[in-house]
Amino acid sequence: MYPNLLLKYIDIRKASIKLIKYLSVEDCMIQCNPDSSPIKWQLGHTTWFFESFVLLKYYKNYKPFNLALHQIFNSYYESKGKKIHKLKRNILSRPSFETIISYRDYVDKHIQEMLEVENKDIDFLVQLGLQHEQQHQELMYADIKSNLFENPIDCIYHKTDKILSEHSELDFLKVSEGLYDIGVENEDEFYFDNEQKNHKYYINDFKIANRLITNGEYLEFVKEGCYDDALLWHSDGWVFNQENDLCMPFYWVKIDEEYYEYELHGIEKLDLNAPVKHITYYEAWAFAKWFGGRLPTEFEWETAAKKYNNVKNHNLLDYDKMDAYLEPVSRKGDNQFIGGAWEWTESAYLPYPGYKQDKGALGEYNGKFIVNYMILRGGCSYTPISHIRHSYRNFYYPDKRWMLSGIRIVK
Amino acid sequence: MYPNLLLKYIDIRKASIKLIKYLSVEDCMIQCNPDSSPIKWQLGHTTWFFESFVLLKYYKNYKPFNLALHQIFNSYYESKGKKIHKLKRNILSRPSFETIISYRDYVDKHIQEMLEVENKDIDFLVQLGLQHEQQHQELMYADIKSNLFENPIDCIYHKTDKILSEHSELDFLKVSEGLYDIGVENEDEFYFDNEQKNHKYYINDFKIANRLITNGEYLEFVKEGCYDDALLWHSDGWVFNQENDLCMPFYWVKIDEEYYEYELHGIEKLDLNAPVKHITYYEAWAFAKWFGGRLPTEFEWETAAKKYNNVKNHNLLDYDKMDAYLEPVSRKGDNQFIGGAWEWTESAYLPYPGYKQDKGALGEYNGKFIVNYMILRGGCSYTPISHIRHSYRNFYYPDKRWMLSGIRIVK
Amino acid sequence: MYPNLLLKYIDIRKASIKLIKYLSVEDCMIQCNPDSSPIKWQLGHTTWFFESFVLLKYYKNYKPFNLALHQIFNSYYESKGKKIHKLKRNILSRPSFETIISYRDYVDKHIQEMLEVENKDIDFLVQLGLQHEQQHQELMYADIKSNLFENPIDCIYHKTDKILSEHSELDFLKVSEGLYDIGVENEDEFYFDNEQKNHKYYINDFKIANRLITNGEYLEFVKEGCYDDALLWHSDGWVFNQENDLCMPFYWVKIDEEYYEYELHGIEKLDLNAPVKHITYYEAWAFAKWFGGRLPTEFEWETAAKKYNNVKNHNLLDYDKMDAYLEPVSRKGDNQFIGGAWEWTESAYLPYPGYKQDKGALGEYNGKFIVNYMILRGGCSYTPISHIRHSYRNFYYPDKRWMLSGIRIVK
Amino acid sequence: MYPNLLLKYIDIRKASIKLIKYLSVEDCMIQCNPDSSPIKWQLGHTTWFFESFVLLKYYKNYKPFNLALHQIFNSYYESKGKKIHKLKRNILSRPSFETIISYRDYVDKHIQEMLEVENKDIDFLVQLGLQHEQQHQELMYADIKSNLFENPIDCIYHKTDKILSEHSELDFLKVSEGLYDIGVENEDEFYFDNEQKNHKYYINDFKIANRLITNGEYLEFVKEGCYDDALLWHSDGWVFNQENDLCMPFYWVKIDEEYYEYELHGIEKLDLNAPVKHITYYEAWAFAKWFGGRLPTEFEWETAAKKYNNVKNHNLLDYDKMDAYLEPVSRKGDNQFIGGAWEWTESAYLPYPGYKQDKGALGEYNGKFIVNYMILRGGCSYTPISHIRHSYRNFYYPDKRWMLSGIRIVK
Repeated sequence: MYPNLLLKYIDIRKASIKLIKYLSVEDCMIQCNPDSSPIKWQLGHTTWFFESFVLLKYYKNYKPFNLALHQIFNSYYESKGKKIHKLKRNILSRPSFETIISYRDYVDKHIQEMLEVENKDIDFLVQLGLQHEQQHQELMYADIKSNLFENPIDCIYHKTDKILSEHSELDFLKVSEGLYDIGVENEDEFYFDNEQKNHKYYINDFKIANRLITNGEYLEFVKEGCYDDALLWHSDGWVFNQENDLCMPFYWVKIDEEYYEYELHGIEKLDLNAPVKHITYYEAWAFAKWFGGRLPTEFEWETAAKKYNNVKNHNLLDYDKMDAYLEPVSRKGDNQFIGGAWEWTESAYLPYPGYKQDKGALGEYNGKFIVNYMILRGGCSYTPISHIRHSYRNFYYPDKRWMLSGIRIVK
Repeated sequence: MYPNLLLKYIDIRKASIKLIKYLSVEDCMIQCNPDSSPIKWQLGHTTWFFESFVLLKYYKNYKPFNLALHQIFNSYYESKGKKIHKLKRNILSRPSFETIISYRDYVDKHIQEMLEVENKDIDFLVQLGLQHEQQHQELMYADIKSNLFENPIDCIYHKTDKILSEHSELDFLKVSEGLYDIGVENEDEFYFDNEQKNHKYYINDFKIANRLITNGEYLEFVKEGCYDDALLWHSDGWVFNQENDLCMPFYWVKIDEEYYEYELHGIEKLDLNAPVKHITYYEAWAFAKWFGGRLPTEFEWETAAKKYNNVKNHNLLDYDKMDAYLEPVSRKGDNQFIGGAWEWTESAYLPYPGYKQDKGALGEYNGKFIVNYMILRGGCSYTPISHIRHSYRNFYYPDKRWMLSGIRIVK
Repeated sequence: MYPNLLLKYIDIRKASIKLIKYLSVEDCMIQCNPDSSPIKWQLGHTTWFFESFVLLKYYKNYKPFNLALHQIFNSYYESKGKKIHKLKRNILSRPSFETIISYRDYVDKHIQEMLEVENKDIDFLVQLGLQHEQQHQELMYADIKSNLFENPIDCIYHKTDKILSEHSELDFLKVSEGLYDIGVENEDEFYFDNEQKNHKYYINDFKIANRLITNGEYLEFVKEGCYDDALLWHSDGWVFNQENDLCMPFYWVKIDEEYYEYELHGIEKLDLNAPVKHITYYEAWAFAKWFGGRLPTEFEWETAAKKYNNVKNHNLLDYDKMDAYLEPVSRKGDNQFIGGAWEWTESAYLPYPGYKQDKGALGEYNGKFIVNYMILRGGCSYTPISHIRHSYRNFYYPDKRWMLSGIRIVK
Repeated sequence: MYPNLLLKYIDIRKASIKLIKYLSVEDCMIQCNPDSSPIKWQLGHTTWFFESFVLLKYYKNYKPFNLALHQIFNSYYESKGKKIHKLKRNILSRPSFETIISYRDYVDKHIQEMLEVENKDIDFLVQLGLQHEQQHQELMYADIKSNLFENPIDCIYHKTDKILSEHSELDFLKVSEGLYDIGVENEDEFYFDNEQKNHKYYINDFKIANRLITNGEYLEFVKEGCYDDALLWHSDGWVFNQENDLCMPFYWVKIDEEYYEYELHGIEKLDLNAPVKHITYYEAWAFAKWFGGRLPTEFEWETAAKKYNNVKNHNLLDYDKMDAYLEPVSRKGDNQFIGGAWEWTESAYLPYPGYKQDKGALGEYNGKFIVNYMILRGGCSYTPISHIRHSYRNFYYPDKRWMLSGIRIVK
């Protein structure tokens, strides 16, 4: 996709800055839900990653920008000293936004200098740092959305024209019983350790939907009172719903019997043809049960995606190239497994056979999270185009819904 | 094992009563941890199961004992009325213990009457009710243990002589790569819906330990300061440890540099040769990592158990036949996969391919719990002998440790 | 009232036992709200008081019943060892109820032996222990009421016939401006340290109601929607109401637009002529404001009571003499300041001028509570007749309502 | 003090802006403790007060700046709509800081226009609004201090030279028993409703310290282990200390056996001669007990201050006139009752005899807080000089310590 790593580095790092074009310094300070971090912090944290894992180790005589910042931007730090709790990142008025931008520039200058000559030692680390940056770009969109939504008087990120979605008839694609290969397709491209090792998995016959469940279809579920029917829900899901008074997806708003939806451009009427999003695993599972189907396992999903995915139809934004924010629209074609919404699977996040966690801090990247999460596949409309692939395993706790999660049915 | 269901019914129901032989009415009232229920409540709840699912539906003109009790003993009840929260079952001074015993006698009389003649309709339901009763018998031991442990002046259930354990050299049993059958071995015997459908699973070569990890081996882990080494732990496990100040297994007590262990017969010096027990999944996983191995998947465990388990060596108590409490001792032989401790596996509790949840309240038995739990296999020394099998799938949240959970290593 | 301390001791200690005549051992175990303690614990705790402060110090060669019990029954104990949190007294299945009764008998035998001869040293301590016992008798009634109320199937302490209350016209008694004496009237009788030192207090003209506010009057306040009018409430009271969904007094139950009230003999229609009770300070204060008056200060109350109280009209139960439980009825006469309900005053619990707290553990009896409480005066229908007087200062946090608290208005 | 209200208005409003001279927009966003509000919010809130109570009611044809802001800046608003919880004021990135400054300018322009002509109607309301503004100026200092303190890398508000304090010998001033006048001295100046009605109070002989307790004296209390001696503390204070691990005043820092103190100019060695500050009521009370004295009642304090206060010695900053921040120094002279620290009294916040709460929203200003607080007297070094007087009653919950609270002893 990129002629060399230097150009890729420049584009991806720049994309983070384009993303905040419509935000004030004050917008970059806020943190409204326990899962989000301030944008300001994320801009520093992604930069710390490069300074800490590349420059401090491989740049000869590197003079750090300010080591005191590591205490703030290292999310893995486990020492005994004064520490900033994840939920308190919004108290960091200092360093200033301006200082963080200088920090980015300083680190970029040094990394780019290194990338101008060939340097095998740092290739993987820079690639990893860029994947990390892209994960945060997607997170920043989700965080901005959840943060601004709380504001009672002004919740718009950027006003754009809404384009209504279209969708095709729901149809089911067949996959036959057999032993399938699971894992990375192209080992020359970057992949995370948790996509490895490639291995065989025995799968029974199944049929998988050619598209995601729409807001319109989910609205039926809501209107039929399914949130009040304990028998449709996991025990934990039922408790979660009761404790949080759940009765529809996050960002849906009901005013005078009409349903609306909050997007980054504001609150508009619910787009019935768009894929439903911002739902918990519990909601996806209960919907599938009520719909007469179930969720796919991640092995079924990957096998179907490798077989059927129509890559030309994806509607992922090419953030790296983009000049300005465009509200993403739902894809129009069929057989798209990439870019609609993160699709909840019925698989828990577990290590693949033969998985090896790296030693030290980098080994913590994925390995220490392998418990209590469910797997989601396929990327969403905020996922950078160069970041997603069939074997990509995303994971969230089953009660999360601030990210763009959706439903695909299996029968 | 039993000539007929009537005799089985009589034995198993009687076992619940034998179990409380050493408890006072006051002991049966207490509830000390959020996972336990008072013994008194459990005696009523298991009885409610038979009245509600068998007698009220199949016994012609059945006159209920007292329908008001259903509100108290139905753990699945989801109506809007005055409800007893799970954590508040210790406020039920009424009905009295005596009334609950009368309730049991009344229901037993009617069920036994039904079982005296052949009755295909109720066979499955009575079997299910007895499995349910046995699950509670094991729970009652675990609950009594955790309840009495809190008492500062008297925590002994029943004084018996402690027999020190022996154990063999740690060795590893080989299983070769291939496609294996997972699921119920004998479909004529009772099994739960979650053990079905039988299916194929592809497994790579692995070697599994011939016995459980001992207290002595785990003590090394403790003494090496592994509870302070963040890199050994899951992120969630690390947080759990910090929040709960974990530094050794539940029931271990350290006095003046010596380690002791609480058992139902009191507090004695840690038996170094006995299997370590009462540990979280996080502890099992961190130990395995430190030990240079990992935990088995439930598929590996089941395959190994079916191949190697030496059934004659188990040391399960035959509660159904037993007259009095005997403190269980750790098994002495090798290749025992049954009865030492519930063995944490690296598998999350997920539905088997083709799993079908029953409709209605019985369908809730296992199906609604299929999320957020980890699988444990093999039974523990409190598990009734007639209750355990190779395909049995137990499940707990990864942070639980009041049950008898242990570790088997895979390499 | 009593010819000697021995007879008083015998009567008062016996009254605690008569009080539990209608309770089972299981009833004595429960603890339903954070303010109550199990009856069983209270029977032991009041006994510990005599053993600890009298026998261990003044009975020559006293052989303690079982010193291990002190760890459980000493509510003041601040050591580092295994300690029973106040909210966890319901886990103490051991010592058994029977053991506690033996403990009482053992201590009684020794105390009575000491009281048979004159012994100036212990007079005050025994008097204090008896006051303490009587405070717990009143608490036990309140605790039994709140504990049994939670039971969904049987909440009756003892069935008696309800006698409907009568009340007189609301009238106001005048007190003139001036410097008044506050404090103990008869220094020969027992009084607490917090009733001292007697001192002068300057009071302006005021008029005080001749009787308590009734359920009927309070019902108007409820029906006018006063619980929804923020302007009537303290800021803290408003928050407390919202967080606890308060909309009427504790124990009131509204079924199909009718109001009922829970008493120890069961749930019956609200007695409109009886004094309203079981209300928070916030409710008393908001009611008074709405009613066009205010609450009295404790100085106004005491001055009015000393001037107007018609002692012959009180309806306090003489528990010490009583054979069985009688549901207390509201008083019928006027000008009764004693025995209707604990009357919230607008005075915070503060030390009187010249107040001296005793050194050591006995000094903790009242002194360490002098902050954050409001003063209540007058005693309620559960208060033993020999326990109450005009100068008696009771105190509760302003959000408490499980005790029998009521309202008297000042203008 | 001011020739007219217009000049006073201009000065006091300007003082709020001078106060933030050393803060960034980001500094004005943060909220680190549950008692503080972001500076940005306080700048808007104090402005809302004038718009809402003066302009909207008395300025003919007033065109509001933006009514939507009322939802955010009205701290008293009790409607059902989307509301900003007090603890979530840090999520308000919008309105921007700039908008809030425009809001201030807009309201100031209109108020000043009104003040240019005589207008009896608004005099009291403008005076009240200015008092309110001054209360927030003091709060802003306290909030900035607690907010910046949390920052691990930069906690300095403004660097100034520290001037070490001096203090005189501790001596005691006598006041004789008698009936004293309590309340406002000069009824022509502004006073709050809670300082009224003036009334008589009978006071016994007492002696009160001529100065506040110093850090040095409090350090003795700390070093003698008084935080571990339960007998010195209120029951509630002891629990508070345990739950919050209190072992010294807020902002004290102990490094290698040395004590330091955080001030707005940074962390420096503890100034032993300066008055101790930032302590809870519990700490003040326990210290006084240990010291062999007690805290004064508010009546004693006021009487002593009226008799002995040497007004020329105060060191209050004249914020209204000041150009830039000066770190306040402790006073050097004796007999100063004003401006050292808010002095905890042993009086709870209760209404004076004859106190009348105004109707409606203004009535809420003080009246709805009259429960659960303790009274503090005398003002601190952050209190504007034109804001404090002998009859001024400040009030805080007894467990607060982020304000400048101190100790004066009575014997």
